[in-house]
Amino acid sequence: MAMFMDVHSGFFGVSEEQLREAHERDLAIEGEEGVHFERAWLDPEQGKVFCLSSGPSREHVARVHEKAGHPTTEIYEVLVDIT
Amino acid sequence: MAMFMDVHSGFFGVSEEQLREAHERDLAIEGEEGVHFERAWLDPEQGKVFCLSSGPSREHVARVHEKAGHPTTEIYEVLVDIT
Repeated sequence: MAMFMDVHSGFFGVSEEQLREAHERDLAIEGEEGVHFERAWLDPEQGKVFCLSSGPSREHVARVHEKAGHPTTEIYEVLVDIT
Repeated sequence: MAMFMDVHSGFFGVSEEQLREAHERDLAIEGEEGVHFERAWLDPEQGKVFCLSSGPSREHVARVHEKAGHPTTEIYEVLVDIT
């Protein structure tokens, strides 16, 4: 399993409820791709969403987001995670 | 206290040890600005670093990174954090 950070742009003014709904759509189908979305952060003023996930590959993460209706091509494989 | 995600670009080929050293430089001085860096992620292939922090403002976060020698202007205030 690898870890990924992906970024969505243009989400200006999105509410917490809207982000939760979008995140639930990911969770509902992520198992089909062997992906799990662990955490998501929103800056509605600058329109950015960051999602942290684990899964087999960037392509798998991309497919979940695409099927859930919020595709992004900006997906980073995180090799180092400092806590 | 607010929460922030910041992004650094151009960190191609950075090693885990180099990231840890950079992170330690942040931790050593973050108290001066009332900031705390909680977590950092690295994609050395695409040269991206993401840092999650808490602090009084984006400007405070920016000052820590600048003093530590790795400035960035890409700092997002995270109003929603879904776990």
